[in-house]
Amino acid sequence: MMKKTMIAALCSGLLLTGACPVQAQPTKPNIVFILMDNLGYGEPGVYGGGITRGAPTPNVDQLASEGLRLTNFNVEAQCTPSRSAIMTGRFAIRSGTHSVPIDGGMEGLTQWEVTLPEVLSQAGYRTALFGKWHLGSNQGRLPNDQGFDEWYGIPRTSDEAFYPDDPQALANHVPLMYVMAGKKGSKSQNVKPYSLEARRQIDTEITQRTIQFMQQSVKEGKPFYAYVPFTQVHFPSLPSPAFAGKSGHGDFADSVMEMDYHVGELLKEIDRLKVRDNTLVIFTSDNGPDDNWPWQGSAGPWRGYYFTHMEGSLRTPFIIRWPGNVPAGRVSNEIVHEVDTFTTLARIGGGNIPQDRPIDGVDQTDFFLGKTPNSARNGFPIYVADRLEGVKWKEWKMVFYEEQRNWWSPPVKLGTPKAFDLITDPKEEYPQSGLRTTWIARPLIGEAARFVGSLKKYPPIAAGTPDPYLPPVQK
Amino acid sequence: MMKKTMIAALCSGLLLTGACPVQAQPTKPNIVFILMDNLGYGEPGVYGGGITRGAPTPNVDQLASEGLRLTNFNVEAQCTPSRSAIMTGRFAIRSGTHSVPIDGGMEGLTQWEVTLPEVLSQAGYRTALFGKWHLGSNQGRLPNDQGFDEWYGIPRTSDEAFYPDDPQALANHVPLMYVMAGKKGSKSQNVKPYSLEARRQIDTEITQRTIQFMQQSVKEGKPFYAYVPFTQVHFPSLPSPAFAGKSGHGDFADSVMEMDYHVGELLKEIDRLKVRDNTLVIFTSDNGPDDNWPWQGSAGPWRGYYFTHMEGSLRTPFIIRWPGNVPAGRVSNEIVHEVDTFTTLARIGGGNIPQDRPIDGVDQTDFFLGKTPNSARNGFPIYVADRLEGVKWKEWKMVFYEEQRNWWSPPVKLGTPKAFDLITDPKEEYPQSGLRTTWIARPLIGEAARFVGSLKKYPPIAAGTPDPYLPPVQK
Repeated sequence: MMKKTMIAALCSGLLLTGACPVQAQPTKPNIVFILMDNLGYGEPGVYGGGITRGAPTPNVDQLASEGLRLTNFNVEAQCTPSRSAIMTGRFAIRSGTHSVPIDGGMEGLTQWEVTLPEVLSQAGYRTALFGKWHLGSNQGRLPNDQGFDEWYGIPRTSDEAFYPDDPQALANHVPLMYVMAGKKGSKSQNVKPYSLEARRQIDTEITQRTIQFMQQSVKEGKPFYAYVPFTQVHFPSLPSPAFAGKSGHGDFADSVMEMDYHVGELLKEIDRLKVRDNTLVIFTSDNGPDDNWPWQGSAGPWRGYYFTHMEGSLRTPFIIRWPGNVPAGRVSNEIVHEVDTFTTLARIGGGNIPQDRPIDGVDQTDFFLGKTPNSARNGFPIYVADRLEGVKWKEWKMVFYEEQRNWWSPPVKLGTPKAFDLITDPKEEYPQSGLRTTWIARPLIGEAARFVGSLKKYPPIAAGTPDPYLPPVQK
Repeated sequence: MMKKTMIAALCSGLLLTGACPVQAQPTKPNIVFILMDNLGYGEPGVYGGGITRGAPTPNVDQLASEGLRLTNFNVEAQCTPSRSAIMTGRFAIRSGTHSVPIDGGMEGLTQWEVTLPEVLSQAGYRTALFGKWHLGSNQGRLPNDQGFDEWYGIPRTSDEAFYPDDPQALANHVPLMYVMAGKKGSKSQNVKPYSLEARRQIDTEITQRTIQFMQQSVKEGKPFYAYVPFTQVHFPSLPSPAFAGKSGHGDFADSVMEMDYHVGELLKEIDRLKVRDNTLVIFTSDNGPDDNWPWQGSAGPWRGYYFTHMEGSLRTPFIIRWPGNVPAGRVSNEIVHEVDTFTTLARIGGGNIPQDRPIDGVDQTDFFLGKTPNSARNGFPIYVADRLEGVKWKEWKMVFYEEQRNWWSPPVKLGTPKAFDLITDPKEEYPQSGLRTTWIARPLIGEAARFVGSLKKYPPIAAGTPDPYLPPVQK
């Protein structure tokens, strides 16, 4: 990388001499996007967890040392909106996916959305999802309907694994969730009920199927995009039998150890297939930890849990490795948002980013590749469900609501917004006051206002909107 | 190290054959003990701080990668008792130094205590203190009276730097603190008033004088023990002019950057003097961070501030580097207490550990050297001032008091003690209940009871006891 950068620097000064080689179009890299579920910022060893949490994470730590690690990577505050942001590059408030659906009606992404697997498929990628979807359990909105060549996993979320083991749920005919599988062009099928037993096994299945998919792709000589949304460490964080009791610190720590093992298995397979240098690996989490004892996770130095606007909810681990491209061992506190992964991966994969709708993701390629020390973004609006609860800009954060003690208590709207300096006040306890508020309010409110203006111009899709969805004609 | 261990392992099996070389008595290593003031667990980059706190710490992070880093290193909860524990290997409740003295009377360690510089002086070391003492500002109890060949610094604590700049303090004849200097065998002298201006400069002076001392020791061919208790990041955390504004995040972050710079200067000098391999370096802090906005520091994932029994108060960063002896890049969550540094350094330096009094420190040499993965200690009693507020044993912690919101509010005695699992509950929020409490109470209370029994057998010295102190005759 260093050498490349130097050549680039030299060549930029020599452009007119004709002495520099024309850079060859690089081969499309494979993409393995590992998404953990409710894994807090404070769990991996390299983020201050690991042994202090009773669960060493050597594979994740090693991955970090081989790539770029972010300490200010931001996500949406719940499973569904977070996954929606990754798939579409759009804040979930736009696409009707701002909240985890619970009513059992129409849910998830409309078919009108353009997803990353759709973009990468068009660019020649084999695409697959193994794991948890949570962006629509209705036929027509499953992963194989939304761009993936194939998928295996659960359409909704992990805690539904309780149903088959609850006699009262069965007696009351609560509909079970099924592990499903599907291929593009045909209907997804139920494989087996998603029980507590299936819950313990599914991350092992996800790993095995991802490995098979990578093997097949390499055999076919095609670039691949494996989206691997593991189901751990979401509650019930029940480990596979191979990891039960392994940590000596209970199910949660066992499941973190299991997570690290699966990550290691995927990385080993990438090496075995000799595609390490041409495979871009991302490791991250959909949102901050659960506050639900004993499945409570750690947000490390930040305060708050998922379903809130606090840093503990919004900041998750994020590691990107791409040998020879992303400089190894770099750590950055620049603000990046998960919507940016859509835009960046679409560009790196040579795909077309939709031009007919607002895409919130910005291209972070130059930042990831170390060509600039700065993120392509300074801030973002913070939505929790359909409420604009705050905004971040550089080290500042402004909130329009006050969180209550527990995530299930709705936040209270503030008469006057509060602004925090996240560097000096990581726990968001000391609102800024005096002169400083007069100038930091401008960029913060400006950041929020720009987005609200865009929402006015492009009205958001309501949650539960059926297909076909057609956007209103722009005035 | 690996090679040494292998030879040792081979030789232990071949002892009777006479084939193994007799191990030469190793040269006494130099010891540089860097103690920061109120530096929280969460400040160094390698502990999750650094750039997220607006202050990169590349030198400390590098040091960690070259040695052993502990995530469960424990200290006493205030400046004075913590420094006392390091100097004597005894919990401060024993020596009348359990609290920061504020009344201006007799204070600090009695001359009867045996200090680490006394032990190491006897073993042939040159010894010096540069920085903050806080174990007695009366003549006869200054560092040069307690074993150090020489010293330069402040006898008490950093916030007294406010006095010379406060007209009302001056008008009321509040006695000023002076920067002092002294040599063994003669009286320490005032050098200059300790003002806010002096406060900004003193860590630079500490570094310069430590460097001169190391140079002179190497010149004389003698092993040296440099005890370097820097005054940062204690409030007022005012950086030197060279670092003012450097972080862009205020005085506190500037002072953390300055700290890292000074550590780097000391390490560079060790290299320049070509004594890297024969110099044992420790980097740690006397207690957890201050809760005093805007000098508030970060305890990382732990809760609480100094002057409390919480993990944020008790756990501090701890790094030990000794090339070729302490394996590089190791991280451990084993419990170590600062009293152990007395015993371990006395042994490594070939000194005599007092046999006529209880020494609480245990020898951690084998653990530090990687000969065993386990600490030589399982737990310790937690005193805050003269109250036994809790006890730690393995991953468990029992508290007999409940902390209030602020450190200046005295804790409330609990009717029934509470026990926490620090692995699953790092914020000490969920007391253990049910069956588990029946068994964990035994080792926890046993650990506390053993110490209380020892205090009965060896009655503690009262705070303010004048010299000469003579221990009561044992019954």
